[in-house]
Amino acid sequence: MQKIWQEAEALQTELVERRRDLHRHPETGWTEFRTASIVIKELQALGYEVYMGDDALVEEEMMGLPVTEVLEQAMVRAVSEGADADLVEKMRGGKTGVVGVMKFSRPGKIVAFRFDMDCNDVEECDTADHRPLESGFQSLHAKEMHACGHDGHVTIGLGLAKLISEYKEEMAGTIKLIFQPAEEGVRGARAMVAKGIVDDVDYMFGGHIGFKATKSDSLVCLTGGFLATTKLDASFKGESSHAGAAPERGRNALLAAAASCIALHSISRHGQGASRINVGVLQAGTGRNVLPDVGLIKMETRGANTEINEFMVTEARRMIKASADMYNVDVTVSEAGGAPACVADHELGAEIKALAEACGQYGQVVDYMDLGGSEDCSYFMERVQQNGGRAAYLMYGTEIAAGHHNSCFDFDEKCLYKAVAMLTELAIAYTNK
Amino acid sequence: MQKIWQEAEALQTELVERRRDLHRHPETGWTEFRTASIVIKELQALGYEVYMGDDALVEEEMMGLPVTEVLEQAMVRAVSEGADADLVEKMRGGKTGVVGVMKFSRPGKIVAFRFDMDCNDVEECDTADHRPLESGFQSLHAKEMHACGHDGHVTIGLGLAKLISEYKEEMAGTIKLIFQPAEEGVRGARAMVAKGIVDDVDYMFGGHIGFKATKSDSLVCLTGGFLATTKLDASFKGESSHAGAAPERGRNALLAAAASCIALHSISRHGQGASRINVGVLQAGTGRNVLPDVGLIKMETRGANTEINEFMVTEARRMIKASADMYNVDVTVSEAGGAPACVADHELGAEIKALAEACGQYGQVVDYMDLGGSEDCSYFMERVQQNGGRAAYLMYGTEIAAGHHNSCFDFDEKCLYKAVAMLTELAIAYTNK
Amino acid sequence: MQKIWQEAEALQTELVERRRDLHRHPETGWTEFRTASIVIKELQALGYEVYMGDDALVEEEMMGLPVTEVLEQAMVRAVSEGADADLVEKMRGGKTGVVGVMKFSRPGKIVAFRFDMDCNDVEECDTADHRPLESGFQSLHAKEMHACGHDGHVTIGLGLAKLISEYKEEMAGTIKLIFQPAEEGVRGARAMVAKGIVDDVDYMFGGHIGFKATKSDSLVCLTGGFLATTKLDASFKGESSHAGAAPERGRNALLAAAASCIALHSISRHGQGASRINVGVLQAGTGRNVLPDVGLIKMETRGANTEINEFMVTEARRMIKASADMYNVDVTVSEAGGAPACVADHELGAEIKALAEACGQYGQVVDYMDLGGSEDCSYFMERVQQNGGRAAYLMYGTEIAAGHHNSCFDFDEKCLYKAVAMLTELAIAYTNK
Amino acid sequence: MQKIWQEAEALQTELVERRRDLHRHPETGWTEFRTASIVIKELQALGYEVYMGDDALVEEEMMGLPVTEVLEQAMVRAVSEGADADLVEKMRGGKTGVVGVMKFSRPGKIVAFRFDMDCNDVEECDTADHRPLESGFQSLHAKEMHACGHDGHVTIGLGLAKLISEYKEEMAGTIKLIFQPAEEGVRGARAMVAKGIVDDVDYMFGGHIGFKATKSDSLVCLTGGFLATTKLDASFKGESSHAGAAPERGRNALLAAAASCIALHSISRHGQGASRINVGVLQAGTGRNVLPDVGLIKMETRGANTEINEFMVTEARRMIKASADMYNVDVTVSEAGGAPACVADHELGAEIKALAEACGQYGQVVDYMDLGGSEDCSYFMERVQQNGGRAAYLMYGTEIAAGHHNSCFDFDEKCLYKAVAMLTELAIAYTNK
Repeated sequence: MQKIWQEAEALQTELVERRRDLHRHPETGWTEFRTASIVIKELQALGYEVYMGDDALVEEEMMGLPVTEVLEQAMVRAVSEGADADLVEKMRGGKTGVVGVMKFSRPGKIVAFRFDMDCNDVEECDTADHRPLESGFQSLHAKEMHACGHDGHVTIGLGLAKLISEYKEEMAGTIKLIFQPAEEGVRGARAMVAKGIVDDVDYMFGGHIGFKATKSDSLVCLTGGFLATTKLDASFKGESSHAGAAPERGRNALLAAAASCIALHSISRHGQGASRINVGVLQAGTGRNVLPDVGLIKMETRGANTEINEFMVTEARRMIKASADMYNVDVTVSEAGGAPACVADHELGAEIKALAEACGQYGQVVDYMDLGGSEDCSYFMERVQQNGGRAAYLMYGTEIAAGHHNSCFDFDEKCLYKAVAMLTELAIAYTNK
Repeated sequence: MQKIWQEAEALQTELVERRRDLHRHPETGWTEFRTASIVIKELQALGYEVYMGDDALVEEEMMGLPVTEVLEQAMVRAVSEGADADLVEKMRGGKTGVVGVMKFSRPGKIVAFRFDMDCNDVEECDTADHRPLESGFQSLHAKEMHACGHDGHVTIGLGLAKLISEYKEEMAGTIKLIFQPAEEGVRGARAMVAKGIVDDVDYMFGGHIGFKATKSDSLVCLTGGFLATTKLDASFKGESSHAGAAPERGRNALLAAAASCIALHSISRHGQGASRINVGVLQAGTGRNVLPDVGLIKMETRGANTEINEFMVTEARRMIKASADMYNVDVTVSEAGGAPACVADHELGAEIKALAEACGQYGQVVDYMDLGGSEDCSYFMERVQQNGGRAAYLMYGTEIAAGHHNSCFDFDEKCLYKAVAMLTELAIAYTNK
Repeated sequence: MQKIWQEAEALQTELVERRRDLHRHPETGWTEFRTASIVIKELQALGYEVYMGDDALVEEEMMGLPVTEVLEQAMVRAVSEGADADLVEKMRGGKTGVVGVMKFSRPGKIVAFRFDMDCNDVEECDTADHRPLESGFQSLHAKEMHACGHDGHVTIGLGLAKLISEYKEEMAGTIKLIFQPAEEGVRGARAMVAKGIVDDVDYMFGGHIGFKATKSDSLVCLTGGFLATTKLDASFKGESSHAGAAPERGRNALLAAAASCIALHSISRHGQGASRINVGVLQAGTGRNVLPDVGLIKMETRGANTEINEFMVTEARRMIKASADMYNVDVTVSEAGGAPACVADHELGAEIKALAEACGQYGQVVDYMDLGGSEDCSYFMERVQQNGGRAAYLMYGTEIAAGHHNSCFDFDEKCLYKAVAMLTELAIAYTNK
Repeated sequence: MQKIWQEAEALQTELVERRRDLHRHPETGWTEFRTASIVIKELQALGYEVYMGDDALVEEEMMGLPVTEVLEQAMVRAVSEGADADLVEKMRGGKTGVVGVMKFSRPGKIVAFRFDMDCNDVEECDTADHRPLESGFQSLHAKEMHACGHDGHVTIGLGLAKLISEYKEEMAGTIKLIFQPAEEGVRGARAMVAKGIVDDVDYMFGGHIGFKATKSDSLVCLTGGFLATTKLDASFKGESSHAGAAPERGRNALLAAAASCIALHSISRHGQGASRINVGVLQAGTGRNVLPDVGLIKMETRGANTEINEFMVTEARRMIKASADMYNVDVTVSEAGGAPACVADHELGAEIKALAEACGQYGQVVDYMDLGGSEDCSYFMERVQQNGGRAAYLMYGTEIAAGHHNSCFDFDEKCLYKAVAMLTELAIAYTNK
């Protein structure tokens, strides 16, 4: 096993180069055309069977898609920045999910790893001591930045792909490497799960770089406490009228939207556990002296478990409809994202811990950490668990320059090769179970 | 005509006695069992054909009825205070409306007069200088008082009945004397109008004592500006739960009721004229630590015309329903009262003015006054006008000791005989048109 | 120690008699005049130093007092039912708290036990199989009933007082027996704690009969999860006006009260743990056509810890004030009850468990149970812990006929003598620590 | 007098050219740099004493100013479109008001005329039959259009300036020609009135083209029913926090803004006359999962008279403040516009009518029309009336292609010369009074 760690460490220069190239070319959710092109080409080169476009996801289940114009501009930009034009064309419409599959001669388990590819809607900071700036790999795209480490995730995924292909002899069964679009806003996993990609998976692993400012040189073997969440947009449509002359002829979408916000925040607490509600954006009306005919809210619910979140969503949908009725306006509600909660598998965590300690490469091995947020990797994990498989979510320890989603985010790249080695160990261990 | 005025004046002692007896025995809306008994007996004695109970109103159209227990206690009290037990029995259920009809030998018009009989939910004041107290005719009933002059109205109606019966020779066509229950809260007129009582009427007269502190010795020939109004009760029914242990299991009727109040007051102003909304009473919940399952609101709308009021009612009903939906509770809305607006017939007013000035008995004859409130006499008047008849509402001038509905209300009884005389003149004039 | 259990069992007839007498004469919070008289006389007879009236509580800290009229009627009734008139007089104003103190010759710790005395605002059920009815000890007082077992608590307290007085030799230090008024609504403890009654206490024990339908013959050694809570009343005062003629002259207390309810339920969830909000009662307005000038809400907050509850209270008070400002009305907020949360002392629980198992008298000994509600015993426990002492809350297992606060509540009286014996053991053990 | 009409008609080609040039170069409120430059140069050329910049208005009283960046871009554009750079510089900061004064040798009255210069925030329509498009004078500026006829008003003002200068012999006293910025949103008049520009005026005339689709060839001699109005912006500032992890740390500006909207629409109707309230725009929050820290509303009140509008404003300001307090956020309210109501001077109207009929040039002369909206010319008129002067507002009849503020608005240019002639008549008549 020591050999794996040495080989992974030998890849480090290549990993850092990859990560920095991705960091320079960040792409937001459903526009990862260049990133996915790189992934596809690399997986193909390494001998993986590759699924993409409609073969990797179900169009109807894609949540929170940007408008067509945005998607098309992103395609043009991806090609101009070196993406393969044919591949980009196949991903038209934002179908940027990719799955690489490799089957091995010996019978064994099906083991899947998931990596997310999208960046944040954040303008990268330009302070002199921001390392991406110092080292010349800061984002080339205004208001887009890898501030959540997904550039590292893709890098780890491709490093893992390489080591797996070099350790074919040790492997058994099947490996599935899943590269997911649109994790930000928890929008992308559902469409890939709906395609059945993990329906036959026995072991499923996800992971994240440096969450909650873990120490460099540490590994968190199991992460739990995923909050179930649902993201909804509600668009109210009434009828405008002159606010002075004939207010009675209007149908007030601003009041409907405002009333819905107040009502939503009055949804009852749940006796069985934590719940959350947030209307984060409210926009209504067109002009001061016009009775407003349009309103829009962007909101989210969360729950300590899927049932509590469902309670919140049911309440929210009914209240939004009633708010519209209250002011005699129409409303359409669309799901812009979502993720279930997920049961933490402490047994599997203990197994991972044993491996992590055995390898002797981590300064600190942590049993468990609470996420206290939402991650749509839970869609994959839930599906695997429902089918009798097992799933775990790791954290690759690293100190960070600033919190996740902060414009000055950066991480210690040493965690990259360590994650590659550790996941390769898991691939060997679990395909051979 | 002078003779009429002399005879009316000769009746004054009898009128005062009648009024004071009624003042001592006030009866609130739909419980005017004793008052109606007196009216019936007197009309019968004078030779009128009398309609009562189900012959005077339509049960389904009675609004704002007290609960059965209250009605039955009132029946017992009426009998104990001298009402004819058989008559009271016939009015069971609050059917206290009475119509007296007298037909005359000469062909002529059908002319109707309307008098309201109920008292207010007011405790009569007991200051030493309150004349009913001084003169020993204060209310015998706790929290019931004739503070709006309806004791006077009934008195005038019976005085008019008497003079008409003495002036048969002068009369033509048909006279209808309508004694209406439950004017307070505008609850009673609709049920009598629904019975068709004024469907054939050519001329319709209503009136009121001393409104807006007119001078004694004055007559207002025409009153307009009746606000259309609707009184609604909304009763919300949800589901209680323990507010600490399982708030999510409740359905919160208190929040639904509260939300409806806020929403109702946000109904748009109307570009075509004045509107009003008032939630006057709100009661909800059972205990501090119980998620509330019950809520009740008592509200009213008004409009400068019937159309504006209808706009308000439509908005209100939809909002109440939506407020219930918002918190997933049930709601039932019932109409507790109402009155339409009414077109002021300035031509008829001018004719009345001519008569009033010709008689030479009034110190001041006023053309027109604005009511600025609601009165369900408008139901009768509207129906007559819709059928091509004409209608007017007079005010019998008198100084008053305090405002209407005030516990110290009282009026100058001289207005009684003057009103009797004036109405007798109208009866003669208009049956002969 | 076996002797203690035998003696306690020998007291059982007396205990049952006592409990049934108290059950027949229930008294709600701050009106426990008869109950307290019995307690005082018994404690005095056993040789305790007794503190009562102003010596047992601080008047200003009494929360949720009934109006004077209610207190005085209760005094009269208590005397008529056998209470000592002089003692009752000393408790005038609802000062019904009692403390019995006994000091022993050997030096030792100060150990306090707390018992609550008040009944519920519940009408006792009258089904044939309700044992208090069958056995003739049902409540003599309409709408008052011991439906929470406090009759049992007082009985246990007096039983304990007796055994302690018989085991003086075994005791050391000081025993304090605290009989608290008004636990329902968590109103009474604060005033006794404010008096300093437990400021010097080393060990503090509270307890409850049969919570959450424990099995008969069981003991729960430690109860935690007390929710901190605050009960507030807010009284809004505006200005009425005629809703049709001059609505602009009113100041609408109904809308202020309604707006406060909506706002209160929109207080943010707390990221650190469970919180609760409930407006249980809302009453506003005087009549349908009067712009409402009065409004009242009765509400409560809760929190998983005192800090969270304080967050809720701060938010609530600000929102109530702002709701009043919104509609230009005045508001006064008064505290009608409250209790802090309380840290569960698992070490002390383990010690109690050892004793309970050693005595061999319980069929089942449970380590810990979560209360999931509020109990103002936490005021005493918190104070003792703040001063470096230790505190625990036990549950005396018993099957119950119906849930607490249910009109058919009843319990298995066998738990009485067992509790007396167990507490006597604790008294000996902890005064000698 | 006929000569005046002939000379005015002779100016028509020049008037049309002027109007079309202005129509092609519309400038929104406070950016009328090019328009004002033209006015200044023309007035100077005709021999008027010209007041501009700080001499024409009080900076502190300018309402609803655009941000500096917008003002500066407009200055650059004006110069690039031919405006005199020096003049534009003198108007820096949006001080685009202009007053031209001409004094005559004979003593007489001071007579003022007011013309508004700004355009609307409207994108001009591009349908083939839209005359400005057909005739090639459509707006050159995106989202700016003269859709309210102010291009015509300026044209009339300069035509009037010319005729007055040609009829010096007929004139007496003093003429003041006021060219006002920012009438849209009723923002500009207050600052000019505050400068004292009309403090000495005896007769004040305002006017509008084609309101309410009057017939071509008609004149409305008096317009009344100006609604008093106030435009307010409220900006809420709270504190953001992570909606999932720590919602209790946020201060929710979105809920404050939403609550204010609901509350504002619940301001009581006014018993003395019509009132209006409209929140036309609401924008709050930054992202779905961020507790929102910003909120903005744009609203207006109106009243049948200034007192009613003041009632609305007082209520609104208090409610906005209370809504901010409710959610513990800060709020700043700024006045973005406003106008008082104004008494219609029917006597002066009658005089104008006599003149209009005498000239024999109008097909239809209308006594009076109700505006049913707001116009800040009322600031000038109110001030003149307060000082004992007299004021009237005319309407220059014309059929219109679409309603005012509609993107297809256009008018019959014949009204231009007729207005010039009529106002010249008024100038002669009233300076000689």
